[in-house]
Amino acid sequence: MNAVNEESIILAHTRIQPHIHRTPLFTSRFLNEYLESELYFKCENFQMTGSFKVRGATNSILKLDEKILEKGVATHSSGNHAQAIAYAAKMAKVAATVVMPKNSVAIKKAAVRDYGAKIIECEPTQESRELTLQKFIEQSGAVFIHPFNDYSVIEGQATCAKEIFEELHELDYVISPVGGGGLLSGTLLSAKYFSNDTKVIAAEPQGADDAYRSWKSGNIQKNAFTKTIADGLLTSLGDKTFSIIREYVHEIITVSDEEIIKAMKMVWERMKIIIEPSSACTLAAVIKQNPAFKGKKIALILTGGNVDITNLPF
Amino acid sequence: MNAVNEESIILAHTRIQPHIHRTPLFTSRFLNEYLESELYFKCENFQMTGSFKVRGATNSILKLDEKILEKGVATHSSGNHAQAIAYAAKMAKVAATVVMPKNSVAIKKAAVRDYGAKIIECEPTQESRELTLQKFIEQSGAVFIHPFNDYSVIEGQATCAKEIFEELHELDYVISPVGGGGLLSGTLLSAKYFSNDTKVIAAEPQGADDAYRSWKSGNIQKNAFTKTIADGLLTSLGDKTFSIIREYVHEIITVSDEEIIKAMKMVWERMKIIIEPSSACTLAAVIKQNPAFKGKKIALILTGGNVDITNLPF
Repeated sequence: MNAVNEESIILAHTRIQPHIHRTPLFTSRFLNEYLESELYFKCENFQMTGSFKVRGATNSILKLDEKILEKGVATHSSGNHAQAIAYAAKMAKVAATVVMPKNSVAIKKAAVRDYGAKIIECEPTQESRELTLQKFIEQSGAVFIHPFNDYSVIEGQATCAKEIFEELHELDYVISPVGGGGLLSGTLLSAKYFSNDTKVIAAEPQGADDAYRSWKSGNIQKNAFTKTIADGLLTSLGDKTFSIIREYVHEIITVSDEEIIKAMKMVWERMKIIIEPSSACTLAAVIKQNPAFKGKKIALILTGGNVDITNLPF
Repeated sequence: MNAVNEESIILAHTRIQPHIHRTPLFTSRFLNEYLESELYFKCENFQMTGSFKVRGATNSILKLDEKILEKGVATHSSGNHAQAIAYAAKMAKVAATVVMPKNSVAIKKAAVRDYGAKIIECEPTQESRELTLQKFIEQSGAVFIHPFNDYSVIEGQATCAKEIFEELHELDYVISPVGGGGLLSGTLLSAKYFSNDTKVIAAEPQGADDAYRSWKSGNIQKNAFTKTIADGLLTSLGDKTFSIIREYVHEIITVSDEEIIKAMKMVWERMKIIIEPSSACTLAAVIKQNPAFKGKKIALILTGGNVDITNLPF
C-alpha cells in the first residue's frame, strides 16, 4: 500500500525538514481591509529553489533505497520541478538528469545546471519530452521522479499545509492552485489529518481548466490546448491526484489571466514580494468570489517566485 | 537639550511600537555563498507605508503636544516621507498637509490621499517646495515635520537598528543608505548605545555623493545637481545629521547606478522581495568592496519597497 496517511506525512516532514525552509506566513493589512477577510499567505516563493516543489522532490529522493539511487534520478520539466530535483539530488549526492524543452528559459536551465544536474534537450512537445526521458531511463537505469502523480511527491507537498495548520487554527479555508494536483492533493490530505474541518478550495486558470472539468464530470479531462500566463499550471491531473481531489476538494474556482495578473500586481505592490503568476490564482479566486469569503479566515498558498523580472505582464 | 540619547531612543521605540511593524531579518543562502559573508537584511520594505520613514514620522507626531497638533502637521516630499506623515497623522487623528511637486508619480499622490492627507501641488523645484510650504504654515499654523534634520525623526529612525541589535549579536557592520542622513544618524546612535562595537558604514549613490564629500572635507557639501536612480537619496545632509555622521560613521562607500541596479536585481531574483533602488545601495557596497567584507557578519538595511513596477530598470 503506497497511499498517503497521517503518519507518512509526519515522517515526510521530519525527513525533509533539514533541507527546506519553514516558510513564513505573511499578512497584509491592506488586503484584509480591501477584502474584508483575514488572509494568511504561505510564502513558498521564499522556499529553496523558489517554489514548494522542493518538498516533494526531496521526500521522493530521500525515501529511495541507496542501491536504487546509484543510477541517479531523472525527470522532465521546463520549470520548478526541474530545479527542485536538481537541488534535492545535489543535497542527497545523487546524479540527476533533467529533460528540458529546447526553448526553456535560459535562466531556468542555468539554475538546473548550477545545482549540478545534467540537461538533455528535447523538442518542445509533451511527446518529445516523454520519449526522450524514456530513452534515457532505459539506457541509464535512472529512477523517474514524477512531478506530481506519485505518493512520495504528494506526501512532500502535504508538508506545506501541515505547517500552515501548526501555526493557524480554526481556518475556514485553505486555497491552493491546481496544475497536476500534487500540491492540492497533499493539501487536502493535510487538511483531513491536521485541521479541524478546514475546507480546501482549488484555484485554476480558465485557460487550463482540466481539474475543474474533471471535478464536475467525475472523470479525468485533459486540456486539448492551454492558454494561460500561469505557466506552472498547464499540466492535467494524474489518476492518483484526481482520486484524492475528487474525494476531498470543496470547490474549484477558475480565474482568467486578467484576474491573475491583477492579483499578482496587487501582491507585488502591496506586499512587496515577488510571486509568479501561478501563485496569484489563489488571491484572484478570493477577489472574484469575494462575497463568499467575507469575514472568513483563509490561508492562501503562494507556490513560487520564479518569474522573469525582465519580462513582466504589467 | 534636544539631543538623542539612549533613553530617548528606548522611549521612542515604546511610543511607536503599536503603530509600526517589527520587520523581519531575511537571509539568503545564495548571497552568503556568493559573497562569502554572513548577511542579514532588515526588511523595512515590509514596513507600514513601504518604508522606514514611518518610524520617524510617527515618533515626531506622537511627541508633540495635543494643543500644538490642533492646527495639524505639514511637510514637503515627493516620496516616502509624504506617505509616512500621512499615515502617522491619520493614526494620531491629526490633519496633515503635504506639499508635493506637480510631477510627482500619480500612485504616490494617491497613497498620500488614501491616508486622508491634503496635497498642495507646487512647481518641481526645491525653492517652490519650500516657499509653498512656508506660505501654508504661516496661514494655517501647522507644524512642519522635517524629513530628516530633526531629533525626533532621528530618534524614530534609530529604532530600526535598535531592533537589529536586539536580534543579532556580534555584528561586525551595519550598512545604511544615506540621503539626508536621518536613518544613518539614528543607526549610528543605536550602534553606540545598543551594540558591542559594531561599525556603521553608509552607502551612497555616486550621483548624489554629498555625504561622502562632506565626511571627507569635514564641512557640509551640497549637490550642485543629482543624477541617480536612487530617488530616495537625492537630498543633502542637514546640520544635525552631519554632526552625528561626522563623529561616528566608520566609512562611506559610493556606488554607481549600474552597481545599484545589479544589486537590486539580485535581491529581486534571489530573495524574491521588492526593494527600491535606494535600498540596493547597501548590497552594492558589499559587492563593490567584497574583499573587505569576507567572513564578516553584516546587517544591511533595506529601506523601502516603493517602486513603480511598471517601469523597472531591468
